[in-house]
Amino acid sequence: MIIMHKGATAEQIDAVIDEIKRLGLKADVSKGESITIIGIVGDERIIPFQRLSILTGVKEARMIETPYKLISREYSEYRDNNRIIRVGNVEIGGDKPVYIAGPCAIESRAQLFRIAEEVKKAGAHILRGGIFKPRSSAHSFQGLGAQGNDEALEALSWLHDAGRKYEMPTITEIRGEKQAELIAKFVDILQIGARNMYDQDLLGTVARLNKPVFYKRHFGASVEELLSFSEYIAVEGNKDIILCERGVLPIGKGKNFTRYTLDLGAVPAIQNETYLPVMVDPSHASGRRDLVYPMSCSAIAAGASGLAIEVHYNPAESWVDAAQAITADELERIINVCNHIYSIAAENKKKTAPK
Amino acid sequence: MIIMHKGATAEQIDAVIDEIKRLGLKADVSKGESITIIGIVGDERIIPFQRLSILTGVKEARMIETPYKLISREYSEYRDNNRIIRVGNVEIGGDKPVYIAGPCAIESRAQLFRIAEEVKKAGAHILRGGIFKPRSSAHSFQGLGAQGNDEALEALSWLHDAGRKYEMPTITEIRGEKQAELIAKFVDILQIGARNMYDQDLLGTVARLNKPVFYKRHFGASVEELLSFSEYIAVEGNKDIILCERGVLPIGKGKNFTRYTLDLGAVPAIQNETYLPVMVDPSHASGRRDLVYPMSCSAIAAGASGLAIEVHYNPAESWVDAAQAITADELERIINVCNHIYSIAAENKKKTAPK
Amino acid sequence: MIIMHKGATAEQIDAVIDEIKRLGLKADVSKGESITIIGIVGDERIIPFQRLSILTGVKEARMIETPYKLISREYSEYRDNNRIIRVGNVEIGGDKPVYIAGPCAIESRAQLFRIAEEVKKAGAHILRGGIFKPRSSAHSFQGLGAQGNDEALEALSWLHDAGRKYEMPTITEIRGEKQAELIAKFVDILQIGARNMYDQDLLGTVARLNKPVFYKRHFGASVEELLSFSEYIAVEGNKDIILCERGVLPIGKGKNFTRYTLDLGAVPAIQNETYLPVMVDPSHASGRRDLVYPMSCSAIAAGASGLAIEVHYNPAESWVDAAQAITADELERIINVCNHIYSIAAENKKKTAPK
Amino acid sequence: MIIMHKGATAEQIDAVIDEIKRLGLKADVSKGESITIIGIVGDERIIPFQRLSILTGVKEARMIETPYKLISREYSEYRDNNRIIRVGNVEIGGDKPVYIAGPCAIESRAQLFRIAEEVKKAGAHILRGGIFKPRSSAHSFQGLGAQGNDEALEALSWLHDAGRKYEMPTITEIRGEKQAELIAKFVDILQIGARNMYDQDLLGTVARLNKPVFYKRHFGASVEELLSFSEYIAVEGNKDIILCERGVLPIGKGKNFTRYTLDLGAVPAIQNETYLPVMVDPSHASGRRDLVYPMSCSAIAAGASGLAIEVHYNPAESWVDAAQAITADELERIINVCNHIYSIAAENKKKTAPK
Repeated sequence: MIIMHKGATAEQIDAVIDEIKRLGLKADVSKGESITIIGIVGDERIIPFQRLSILTGVKEARMIETPYKLISREYSEYRDNNRIIRVGNVEIGGDKPVYIAGPCAIESRAQLFRIAEEVKKAGAHILRGGIFKPRSSAHSFQGLGAQGNDEALEALSWLHDAGRKYEMPTITEIRGEKQAELIAKFVDILQIGARNMYDQDLLGTVARLNKPVFYKRHFGASVEELLSFSEYIAVEGNKDIILCERGVLPIGKGKNFTRYTLDLGAVPAIQNETYLPVMVDPSHASGRRDLVYPMSCSAIAAGASGLAIEVHYNPAESWVDAAQAITADELERIINVCNHIYSIAAENKKKTAPK
Repeated sequence: MIIMHKGATAEQIDAVIDEIKRLGLKADVSKGESITIIGIVGDERIIPFQRLSILTGVKEARMIETPYKLISREYSEYRDNNRIIRVGNVEIGGDKPVYIAGPCAIESRAQLFRIAEEVKKAGAHILRGGIFKPRSSAHSFQGLGAQGNDEALEALSWLHDAGRKYEMPTITEIRGEKQAELIAKFVDILQIGARNMYDQDLLGTVARLNKPVFYKRHFGASVEELLSFSEYIAVEGNKDIILCERGVLPIGKGKNFTRYTLDLGAVPAIQNETYLPVMVDPSHASGRRDLVYPMSCSAIAAGASGLAIEVHYNPAESWVDAAQAITADELERIINVCNHIYSIAAENKKKTAPK
Repeated sequence: MIIMHKGATAEQIDAVIDEIKRLGLKADVSKGESITIIGIVGDERIIPFQRLSILTGVKEARMIETPYKLISREYSEYRDNNRIIRVGNVEIGGDKPVYIAGPCAIESRAQLFRIAEEVKKAGAHILRGGIFKPRSSAHSFQGLGAQGNDEALEALSWLHDAGRKYEMPTITEIRGEKQAELIAKFVDILQIGARNMYDQDLLGTVARLNKPVFYKRHFGASVEELLSFSEYIAVEGNKDIILCERGVLPIGKGKNFTRYTLDLGAVPAIQNETYLPVMVDPSHASGRRDLVYPMSCSAIAAGASGLAIEVHYNPAESWVDAAQAITADELERIINVCNHIYSIAAENKKKTAPK
Repeated sequence: MIIMHKGATAEQIDAVIDEIKRLGLKADVSKGESITIIGIVGDERIIPFQRLSILTGVKEARMIETPYKLISREYSEYRDNNRIIRVGNVEIGGDKPVYIAGPCAIESRAQLFRIAEEVKKAGAHILRGGIFKPRSSAHSFQGLGAQGNDEALEALSWLHDAGRKYEMPTITEIRGEKQAELIAKFVDILQIGARNMYDQDLLGTVARLNKPVFYKRHFGASVEELLSFSEYIAVEGNKDIILCERGVLPIGKGKNFTRYTLDLGAVPAIQNETYLPVMVDPSHASGRRDLVYPMSCSAIAAGASGLAIEVHYNPAESWVDAAQAITADELERIINVCNHIYSIAAENKKKTAPK
């Protein structure tokens, strides 16, 4: 990491970048209002920090040990503010919570459009719909996208069209490198699911498509791992990363009555470490329709930047994850209550934050 | 379990109870407005349910497989309402959240009285203070109580007096059977700590003291285990049990930035299973002062009946768990915000509850 | 699943297969000595089992609920024997334990050839060497393969040549779909690492290359998940799957003194469920050189079909995972002791197996 | 910790001990062949190490941070050898593995004597039998001891008599402080069960009875916690502690096919940290009769000092834990194979141990 002097000129900054490139490395420039920080991407062991530290305009040059330095709040210009990710008219990480809603899996054009209309009316901002579904059994329905190229194209165009018609940016999951380019042509936000969190080649491939990435924590991953693997996206020059907590493995013998354990302490903990926005998925975490409401309230009260919720007009008929889908009516009430909680908890947060 | 007919007379109920006693078992009578349920305590394998089912007034007699039948919402008169536990003027499980606050460990009379005064002013309802501290190292400070009988007596009388002076019921932890009777003479609510959750002999001993029990979930226990071991208190005829979620073992390699993982999905999940109130301890769960505020908001938004928070006028000087204590000023802000969230989230909860 | 009558003719079997294909599904034929079982690959909900059950030669046609039916011992011809996977002259799953050994990462031609010579002499059967390394930090060395196409080709040819020279089949890890085809041209066994266990698109891509797959359990995965995701390989018609236990997430607060918790009970548990061979990786599990010996003995005593061990002539200089590499001398002693234990434990196993 | 000079006299050692007592602390003296180490029990913050370091004969006086210093290999005279615990003619931690066997719960005099005779013949050294059973349901059979004083006395005398008749020391579990003294009158080794591992008051009470303690790891405890809580026994001056690994919480979604995950890497890891013997309980760990054999072999191969196994002449009829009991015939075969493995693995261990 190289920290430039406050008055460093553009020429001085460029000279440092050139020097980094000459060493066969990449420079990651983070320009704040008064300070410029240049991260170095590559194997740090070969970097001649001493030589870099005497270039004109350089205040400090040193190795950063943390594996997530590019997205770290500490080593960036985002010390006191957050990165806001803009998709269409939606701002993620800003002053208002953002709601992603839609069916778990897209089943038909009619199903998607009906749900899209309903969630838009309920107050959702972004439309979700699964086309390539990661499933625990090879013998379960894998999404329309898995049935062939034509079906994938058709489902993607439905999602695209529903998003345009109801004025919501769209999001769907990318499960494998080969689908990535096609999906990116139709969809605004690219999702990496929890099971693929560690799949570093997929991360790189998706990152290079230069669209915002919705990145879910694996159920066996620590917060540090989530941050460290986010760095595989950031090293490609893509920092439009939305982190998502969706529950970790439950502990103990016998029943916990929830599918996963939603780790809401992770929300403020992550916010301390990185400037990236954090959202929460209360649907997959609980796996139970009746817990979506309390877990949504709880997530927003913990400071989450928004929620991703599965909605179906007839939850019981949903092809995938029927037990956790809610109706648009329930979504509307959740949005109203959560907006209210957000305004109370966030406003007071500022007053109580310790130094 | 024996369910009586709606019009069953007191004599018929008594006759069933007598018959149960004749079998060498205990009866646990749960009288609702219109229905009486008689639980049977003892080894169910020897119960002649057929014979009991033909007694006059009996509607149904059958074995209940669940290990927590006495505290189960399903097999009790508390189908649609909760058990409210009254201690002095405080109602736990009622319409308002309850706040337990005080030092982690009692260090001196002056320290306790100063903190008691401050937390009372901040809005706390119940005064906590550790006298016998369960510690992970045998070489750490174990609380004043562990230093001898005189010290224990002195600390207990301080806690008692501070509670009377500042009009708050008191609570402290019982770590072993031998301390139980003494502590019960001075203190209003008896705490079983997380590490002793499974200690069934201690549970029985404490239960028989006939005071409300504050019962914390072990960090390796499922919700089902918490409920099943609560039953060791209930079988002694004591159902004034306040359950407390305080975080489970974190998952994953590397740092999670919180000491434990607060399982807030457990709050509504437990409320579905039992009529007992559930509180949350955000201090031990996070182990970090700066996370007490967001985790408090989050717990109340999830529907918790209250919070247990560690407070010190000079957190950094606290002998035990210094990293997580907050000041009374911070407590006051937390109470104000949480009361607000509770009113919003709870009111709307009624509207959104699925059938 | 369709079970044919004992005397079913080839024509009858073909007729059933044709019918399955007509339904748009795939048939997975498992021919035992006296019985033929036809698995059906695809969405079972649409299968007309009743119609299939009346075809000539069919004894029984019914839906199998288990998510790992194709590799299940119960629904295959391998009820009492195991699948032996042959690679060159090596038999995995047979009467003798198999040892995979080599460097964690290939560093140079000289390093690889020197280690290959040493492990061959020590008694190893298969040569391993990492070229594309999955790392927890994006800023760590990712293997020679990640440095460019030329470097990848070079390292792959070294591995190929060392295998030929020292007469050992070779194995390396495939981290992403795009590397798969290239790697398969040079290497005999394709490894899916623990972090990619859930990556179903990668599983399919690798499976279709028709080489044996060495498939490692994720550290957060249950045995059932390992088996269910193995099915993603099997549905591609590739059943040459070698399962590998390499440790799961450690439990509890504080140190466990091992990097992961090696789950050796999983070895016989897996063997009960599937006919596939199970190997163990004691190096990554413990992360400690001094525990490789006891964990190797322990794994073989539990019934493992072999071990995968990281070896370096100068462990401390190893670029990756230096703490766990052992020397070839240590490997030789491990192989000698383990062969001895295998003969004792396996022979007696037959005598003690319960019905 | 105070390390004395090699030639320190008895008077010098006594003078140091006197000084420690004068400070209100306890001295824990560990005399090796050439070196004497004096541990200090109590709150180390108040110890004037400087003053102690200038006493005659003292080589070094300093604070030890580890929470398990009294049982630590590093800070004791047991640097290169182990503590051997002698009970009757049995040596635990010595050159041969030790087998504890008997019924899970004592059901009757006849049942116990029959099993005692059988396990003795099979080669067992120590007789186990549960009288006070910790159960997960308050409504299950809690052991004969829980049915009343007379029943407890009777069952204890049976265990005592069976031990004398078949010449085996005996062991049973102590679940609560109130039973401790009574049990110690009849039984040779006092067991603390996994669920009571953290119960520090019970640990102290049992330790002071001055009999060997068989101390089982909690299923949610790290190795460091097991060692740290063992220290609660050691600070009472009782170092005859036999540690027991019995499985930790399984990881992952879905089935693992074993009740717990036996952590056999913990065996050598513990042996590196402490001089105390480590045994393994393969019965509770697996919860499956057919896995007792492979897990026994595996535990002994990992270096365990012995096994604790549940035996019943008619496993299916066992009142408690019927699924995991084996017959004495199976025990005999296990003992024969394990003795063989022990001799191979242990002998070679010496040759392979790294510096």
